[in-house]
Amino acid sequence: MNAVIISVGDELISGQTVDTNSAYLARRLAGMGIVTSAHQTVGDDRPAIAAAIKSAAEAVDLVVVTGGLGPTADDLTRQAVADAMGTALATNAQCLAEIEEFFHRRGRTMVPANRIQAMIPLGAEPLANKVGTAPGIAARVAGKPVFVLPGVPAEMEWMFDATVAPRLDRHAGVVLYHTVHTFGQGESDIASAIVDLMDRGRNPIVGTTVSGGMVTLRIISRSAGPQEARRAIRDTVDQLRRRLGAMVVGEGEETMASAVGLLLRQRKQTLAVTESCTGGMIGEMITATAGSSDYFLGGVIAYANQAKTQLLSVPHSVLETHGAVSEPTAIAAAEGCRKLLASDWAIGITGIAGPSGGSESKPVGLVHIALAGPQGTKAYRHVLPGNRATVRLRASLSAMNHLRLALLGEPAH
Amino acid sequence: MNAVIISVGDELISGQTVDTNSAYLARRLAGMGIVTSAHQTVGDDRPAIAAAIKSAAEAVDLVVVTGGLGPTADDLTRQAVADAMGTALATNAQCLAEIEEFFHRRGRTMVPANRIQAMIPLGAEPLANKVGTAPGIAARVAGKPVFVLPGVPAEMEWMFDATVAPRLDRHAGVVLYHTVHTFGQGESDIASAIVDLMDRGRNPIVGTTVSGGMVTLRIISRSAGPQEARRAIRDTVDQLRRRLGAMVVGEGEETMASAVGLLLRQRKQTLAVTESCTGGMIGEMITATAGSSDYFLGGVIAYANQAKTQLLSVPHSVLETHGAVSEPTAIAAAEGCRKLLASDWAIGITGIAGPSGGSESKPVGLVHIALAGPQGTKAYRHVLPGNRATVRLRASLSAMNHLRLALLGEPAH
Repeated sequence: MNAVIISVGDELISGQTVDTNSAYLARRLAGMGIVTSAHQTVGDDRPAIAAAIKSAAEAVDLVVVTGGLGPTADDLTRQAVADAMGTALATNAQCLAEIEEFFHRRGRTMVPANRIQAMIPLGAEPLANKVGTAPGIAARVAGKPVFVLPGVPAEMEWMFDATVAPRLDRHAGVVLYHTVHTFGQGESDIASAIVDLMDRGRNPIVGTTVSGGMVTLRIISRSAGPQEARRAIRDTVDQLRRRLGAMVVGEGEETMASAVGLLLRQRKQTLAVTESCTGGMIGEMITATAGSSDYFLGGVIAYANQAKTQLLSVPHSVLETHGAVSEPTAIAAAEGCRKLLASDWAIGITGIAGPSGGSESKPVGLVHIALAGPQGTKAYRHVLPGNRATVRLRASLSAMNHLRLALLGEPAH
Repeated sequence: MNAVIISVGDELISGQTVDTNSAYLARRLAGMGIVTSAHQTVGDDRPAIAAAIKSAAEAVDLVVVTGGLGPTADDLTRQAVADAMGTALATNAQCLAEIEEFFHRRGRTMVPANRIQAMIPLGAEPLANKVGTAPGIAARVAGKPVFVLPGVPAEMEWMFDATVAPRLDRHAGVVLYHTVHTFGQGESDIASAIVDLMDRGRNPIVGTTVSGGMVTLRIISRSAGPQEARRAIRDTVDQLRRRLGAMVVGEGEETMASAVGLLLRQRKQTLAVTESCTGGMIGEMITATAGSSDYFLGGVIAYANQAKTQLLSVPHSVLETHGAVSEPTAIAAAEGCRKLLASDWAIGITGIAGPSGGSESKPVGLVHIALAGPQGTKAYRHVLPGNRATVRLRASLSAMNHLRLALLGEPAH
């Protein structure tokens, strides 16, 4: 079974907003054995939306549309769906009552503009929306199911999971996707270690992607049934882990931060961080994982020198002799932080994220990382390529990776 | 002049990776008066890529393709371009020399797999890549220009700016996009205040989008020349600012964090933060702006209670009586942080990001924000909807917005 995902919105077509809905939907569909063959994005243009829906419905088995169901004049998807169906819009009394109720519960009055959200193409069904005002639409075009969902990600995700997924059959021919995330080597180096697994004729097949500072390996497994597909994926993951060793950070939804968290939890150890150039990014990433309070104590954002000396007891002499971006400063900050918070581990990070502030001896991208732990403190120097955002991301990932590798060398309890 | 942007990759089509390249390209094209009429995403499938390029070239004036130029077996775009042109690939000697040189400069040896990256369709031109190994391709299909760029965002952006943009003519009929970001009211409330500016027949026309926790207003201005288009946008921005007042956070590339930074800089004041449920997110957002060291001193990530008492001098009695997520704790933390770092302002934030940890009196989404400033301390209570990531984002934005509104009430120097 093949699907096309259509995203609607001038904000998407013009690049003001990045479309994250299509990726969510493709992942969810894949989990049900439905292969997405294309994503399309069109603007707030009624004929263009209608034409995209029609041609997709003619080409594949399932069409999912997101966006353009809001209450304002640029929300034209419901009209376009009616056009593609060759029908007209009519107010759905139950939808109207639900929208009024939604406002009522929040103690607000419904503005007249929201009435349009209760309109549904004749012959289509509304899809309930418990997290926003716009109901979705379940329609048929060219005999194929077309599901229309709001563009706000939280509403779209709720509606897909609650109302669309239960209507989609599980399919006999199953395609499962899985990912393995690596850190530490470039894409072509990793590919040369697994070239046989990447052969286009192989099943499961492995592909590589550079994303978010890491190299991710995708595994696509096609089988008659889910058990076989899962087993084949597991075999391939085992091979990847055997060949790539400690470069493998995690799988699927796992991140560098969640992998570090898991290792800390297993070892019943705690972490504190002190961040300069990353300004809180490592703390933010670590605490994105629910339950991180079990192993993360907190830390110090030591952006100004004063914060380094006063909070972390970095000696003035170290800052004066070596500068804020130096190995001795990173070490003193990490050790000061570990002491201050009485943690097992502390990461200290200081660097020049750019675009300005670099010099010949200390270029933009220079990052010093110190890792203070039960066995002492180690320091690492990196010169990272890229712009300010990339340098900060890579610095954060590198710091967590040094901790990850150190934890892998420690016994788990 | 119309363009279609095509993104290639199994990682995109399957939802493993979110496509950010299309948004970048659409924004850059718009700045040159080129309207993107559709984005398309296809997998690593040679016939599908070739078909997408051909049909786009037949429909519009310009095609930009990203992805699938890597060195591995799943990189099939260069073959697909040759197919769409009806030609074959041949090794380009200069490209090969440049790729070898790229590895040489980094002290690495080129693996044989990288040779494929020097292959270009006969009759096409290579586009230089100074930041990676894969050259791009400038081709013609159906008489229309087709530019093919790598999928790694940093390489794609460099190549578009350095090699593609100079080849694109500026056009007589100009379309300019601009955005105005607001915070504090829902989409339909804002829309009802500007309904006349959203009329589909108006030029410039205003549209609304909910994205990243804020409501963004898009302005699309079509004019004969760039001066008129810019003037029309300026007039519309003035109207929006007049009607929406302090809800307007910024324009274009401005963010909540950069807006706060600008106000602090104008007032020669400094900021420190102490974060619990957001774990460093506010610090990370503030320091994403280059030059933020002029006004941002740092702060404390007070995730564990011990960090709150020891670093910020939050009294044990406050934590015991009111709990870590309470107004008194937020106030004590903010005041402790302001003192510790001797800043003009300090934000204190504590809350329950979920998914667990909530109770009837303190539900998931409850966030207490305290703002300690020159005139004393104010506290704010929010119950924010959404999942862990959304609650943390909204909490960070709300905290910075309280500071922004307070700063707007202070005189600038």
